Amino acid sequence: MQIGLVGLGKMGGNMRERLRNAGHEVVGYDTNPELSDVKNLVELADQLAAPRAVWVMVPAGGPTQRVIDQLASVLKPGDIVIDGGNSRWTDDEKHAEELGKRGIGFVDAGVSGGVWGLEHGYALMVGGAEEHVERLKPVFDALKPEGPYGYVHAGKVGAGHFSKMVHNGIEYAMMQAYAEGWELLEKVDSVDNVREVFRSWQQGTVIRSWLLDLAVNALDEDQHLDKLRGYAEDSGEGRWTVEAAIDNAVPLPAITASLFARFASRQDDSPQMKMIAALRNQFGGHAVEAAKK
Amino acid sequence: MQIGLVGLGKMGGNMRERLRNAGHEVVGYDTNPELSDVKNLVELADQLAAPRAVWVMVPAGGPTQRVIDQLASVLKPGDIVIDGGNSRWTDDEKHAEELGKRGIGFVDAGVSGGVWGLEHGYALMVGGAEEHVERLKPVFDALKPEGPYGYVHAGKVGAGHFSKMVHNGIEYAMMQAYAEGWELLEKVDSVDNVREVFRSWQQGTVIRSWLLDLAVNALDEDQHLDKLRGYAEDSGEGRWTVEAAIDNAVPLPAITASLFARFASRQDDSPQMKMIAALRNQFGGHAVEAAKK
Amino acid sequence: MQIGLVGLGKMGGNMRERLRNAGHEVVGYDTNPELSDVKNLVELADQLAAPRAVWVMVPAGGPTQRVIDQLASVLKPGDIVIDGGNSRWTDDEKHAEELGKRGIGFVDAGVSGGVWGLEHGYALMVGGAEEHVERLKPVFDALKPEGPYGYVHAGKVGAGHFSKMVHNGIEYAMMQAYAEGWELLEKVDSVDNVREVFRSWQQGTVIRSWLLDLAVNALDEDQHLDKLRGYAEDSGEGRWTVEAAIDNAVPLPAITASLFARFASRQDDSPQMKMIAALRNQFGGHAVEAAKK
Amino acid sequence: MQIGLVGLGKMGGNMRERLRNAGHEVVGYDTNPELSDVKNLVELADQLAAPRAVWVMVPAGGPTQRVIDQLASVLKPGDIVIDGGNSRWTDDEKHAEELGKRGIGFVDAGVSGGVWGLEHGYALMVGGAEEHVERLKPVFDALKPEGPYGYVHAGKVGAGHFSKMVHNGIEYAMMQAYAEGWELLEKVDSVDNVREVFRSWQQGTVIRSWLLDLAVNALDEDQHLDKLRGYAEDSGEGRWTVEAAIDNAVPLPAITASLFARFASRQDDSPQMKMIAALRNQFGGHAVEAAKK
Repeated sequence: MQIGLVGLGKMGGNMRERLRNAGHEVVGYDTNPELSDVKNLVELADQLAAPRAVWVMVPAGGPTQRVIDQLASVLKPGDIVIDGGNSRWTDDEKHAEELGKRGIGFVDAGVSGGVWGLEHGYALMVGGAEEHVERLKPVFDALKPEGPYGYVHAGKVGAGHFSKMVHNGIEYAMMQAYAEGWELLEKVDSVDNVREVFRSWQQGTVIRSWLLDLAVNALDEDQHLDKLRGYAEDSGEGRWTVEAAIDNAVPLPAITASLFARFASRQDDSPQMKMIAALRNQFGGHAVEAAKK
Repeated sequence: MQIGLVGLGKMGGNMRERLRNAGHEVVGYDTNPELSDVKNLVELADQLAAPRAVWVMVPAGGPTQRVIDQLASVLKPGDIVIDGGNSRWTDDEKHAEELGKRGIGFVDAGVSGGVWGLEHGYALMVGGAEEHVERLKPVFDALKPEGPYGYVHAGKVGAGHFSKMVHNGIEYAMMQAYAEGWELLEKVDSVDNVREVFRSWQQGTVIRSWLLDLAVNALDEDQHLDKLRGYAEDSGEGRWTVEAAIDNAVPLPAITASLFARFASRQDDSPQMKMIAALRNQFGGHAVEAAKK
Repeated sequence: MQIGLVGLGKMGGNMRERLRNAGHEVVGYDTNPELSDVKNLVELADQLAAPRAVWVMVPAGGPTQRVIDQLASVLKPGDIVIDGGNSRWTDDEKHAEELGKRGIGFVDAGVSGGVWGLEHGYALMVGGAEEHVERLKPVFDALKPEGPYGYVHAGKVGAGHFSKMVHNGIEYAMMQAYAEGWELLEKVDSVDNVREVFRSWQQGTVIRSWLLDLAVNALDEDQHLDKLRGYAEDSGEGRWTVEAAIDNAVPLPAITASLFARFASRQDDSPQMKMIAALRNQFGGHAVEAAKK
Repeated sequence: MQIGLVGLGKMGGNMRERLRNAGHEVVGYDTNPELSDVKNLVELADQLAAPRAVWVMVPAGGPTQRVIDQLASVLKPGDIVIDGGNSRWTDDEKHAEELGKRGIGFVDAGVSGGVWGLEHGYALMVGGAEEHVERLKPVFDALKPEGPYGYVHAGKVGAGHFSKMVHNGIEYAMMQAYAEGWELLEKVDSVDNVREVFRSWQQGTVIRSWLLDLAVNALDEDQHLDKLRGYAEDSGEGRWTVEAAIDNAVPLPAITASLFARFASRQDDSPQMKMIAALRNQFGGHAVEAAKK
């Protein structure tokens, strides 16, 4: 089928390629003219036969909002916009309402797969009305991995991004689990070769997983991770997961601990631990260390 | 090769079968005469040609200690004892020393695989001297899963159980990760079918794993887990992991949160939350609820 | 000085009394005519000489918004509205802007003191412009405790509620600290009388505090808190504290753990622990318990 | 009354002074002859009339064990040894048994007060048999703060150190509570003066405490704690508290989070966060930072 694709960066560009490999006709637009198939969104709409489907794959927040605003004015009743970016699920209902006023459908798609997606397919979690989702099925089929899994129509508008967000929250805690175990193994004398312990876990254990495979890859490149700084960004979904948990009074101790570990990893010195040091000094006369210059 | 096997319960019995299927000659002993191949450990030792190897597969702590004490008196210099139970790594050095005084070798083996091991093999994490481990290689090869992984000589005596213990600590936090995500998804209205979201994650996602597959199995049996109580035992390794972390000043926030969640799951009412309720009542006049009868 | 006071519930009623005891002229309004000094907000405004000051003491969110909307239409340029309720700091800027358009000043006041405030005074954390705060000084002086502390002009609009919110976050973790310690002491055999241990801590220790005094009061009423259920509400500020921390990438492990403990205390059964139980059953054949009816 | 005192460091020296100020006759021994009243423990025993009481105030573990071993040989049946050091409660039963074989009594005393104890008194948590504790009452009365609190006979041998250990665990989490709140307040723009917010909290709030007073002192010396490094030792009791909780299956999320925050504060770089960074790089191509040199 025909599909418009807005945003041809690392993710969007690979998705265009995977869609074309599957025989779909993709009209791509990007602000970078070297990547773009068309000059602007008006031209993109012109090149697609109605009813159109336009997949938006740009950064969450302002950029996605701007593209959706523009699409609202160039698309027609009966068309569908898919937001495949990392938008917060709370934006989805807003977008669905804005577009719905003009008769334009809206579907949100949480997309997992990163740099591996072009080759192996992208896991898709989709939210929206049955009729919209049904019409996009050929696109989802082309993007998803081969095999029985990797795609779900999770529920109403917002359910796709919500499911993807929770996926990332789980991912945070799984990564933290391996990371904590790795640090502890590296710390003790009796274990000679932590990398080989990790490698062995890839079969027959309860904790075998794709992330474990990646951990082994990483240790093969740098056995003790000496070249890296223990510094980790967080991408939004982890924060939103905790916020959603708070809204719903759900305790998420492991996921939240994982998020906080990332926050702490980015601090050169910890203000709160300065206060701990100061208090220890006040009541016990415990020595303090001077601030790092 | 020939091997003695002490303890023929669920795990030991299956291991005897897997070893025999691989062509090894197993002499098994169990206190239950219906399971046992011999009357006692003396007979077990008699039926094995020197140098002997005897695998101990009984509950950690007292039972393992008693078997090792008895083996110390019936085995001869040059023989090897393998402790394949869930012993704490700190016991291993003690056992190695006790047996070493009599010239008997000691190897510790952390074993993962549970009810799936007979068919798919047991992941093995082994600690001990190179010469002892080398001699037992045919046994390890028969027990481990087919394929390149599932076995590691992790280091000195104790390293096998230590690695297995950390494996279990990681397992706790991974289970907690999926569990937290599942509860949050079940709580929100927009997601219609959490089971199908979990199922879809089995391909193309960052969080695909064997535990995820098991979660899908569980949800196929009982979609909202309505039949279960949220009650979870802990088996020792999780506690030991946190204790080892404390000994080594390694922060383990996610693994520890997972352990504490299990402790809390077993309380009918939470004493600490009684104190929170009492304090809120004291300073704010907030209503309290009467204790459950 | 003259002051209007909207909301004469438990808190507002006591504050009216404390202000009158200090010689101020308070015109109170409440939707309950038995508590109210005037029929409506128009009459309240009429009875105050310009420039007026009106203190709003109603529940956060909708009720506060509605009162502020009404005051916006009955007050005049030069008047000041004070929001002394438990509003989220993010509401303050909005209220300041709405009122500012009509020349009406806005000050936010975080108020601590609960049922003890009438007698001992209310701790006040105030945010707003220097000129507004200065004009209200006599009111703050009457409400605050005697002595050098208990009042701060914390910063710009919003700073009062933000400071109060953090106060409550700290409160959550302090309560949790005592509660955890109490549960552990109650659990061990060697300690005969936990209540007397708590009582003894009231002098000479590092952890003496007003909350500790309250804990002793509570234990004097019910030595083992047998009469209470371990059930604790949370009032909003704890959640907002964690959300503010997430917005600012500040790790708050102890405060967040305290919030999550309250969430968990309100669950009859834990959905996430059902998943843990289900997974244990899947891989290890561990027994599960049936759901409580 | 007469009392022997072994260990005249910062704590022991001040305690000798406080005891003498109260009219007691103290015979002090220290390995440093400049501090010591007697040449050795034999002389110490000689100078005390039977039945003797000897207070041991030396570092926990080996040093305490050695002093108790020596006292076992110089003291007589009917004498009492008090361990006032920071011993682990599990040592107490052992010491009581060793001394008990020779008819010597044993009492454990957890002591709080630090550098403030000489002037304000030491809070004492005592474990042991009623008859032994009763005989030492005059000593406890002299050491404790004036007023109704600051002393408790908590229970059997071990109960004193156990109570003191839990006191310290609570202390960890209370310090963490203030520290987290302080960091968050320092981070936001609207709050101009965090120190003054802390100062104001000293009256009328739920969170007023001695630790809060100390925090204000610390901020008066260094308003933003710029001179300090966020580095905090832990002294043993925090670790033991978590270990005791694990032994008793009591969840301690806030106290444990506080302990882990200290562990993390002492790491120049976080090994576990290296693994997180490595995994993010593997699956998402996320940039990593080079290790700090």
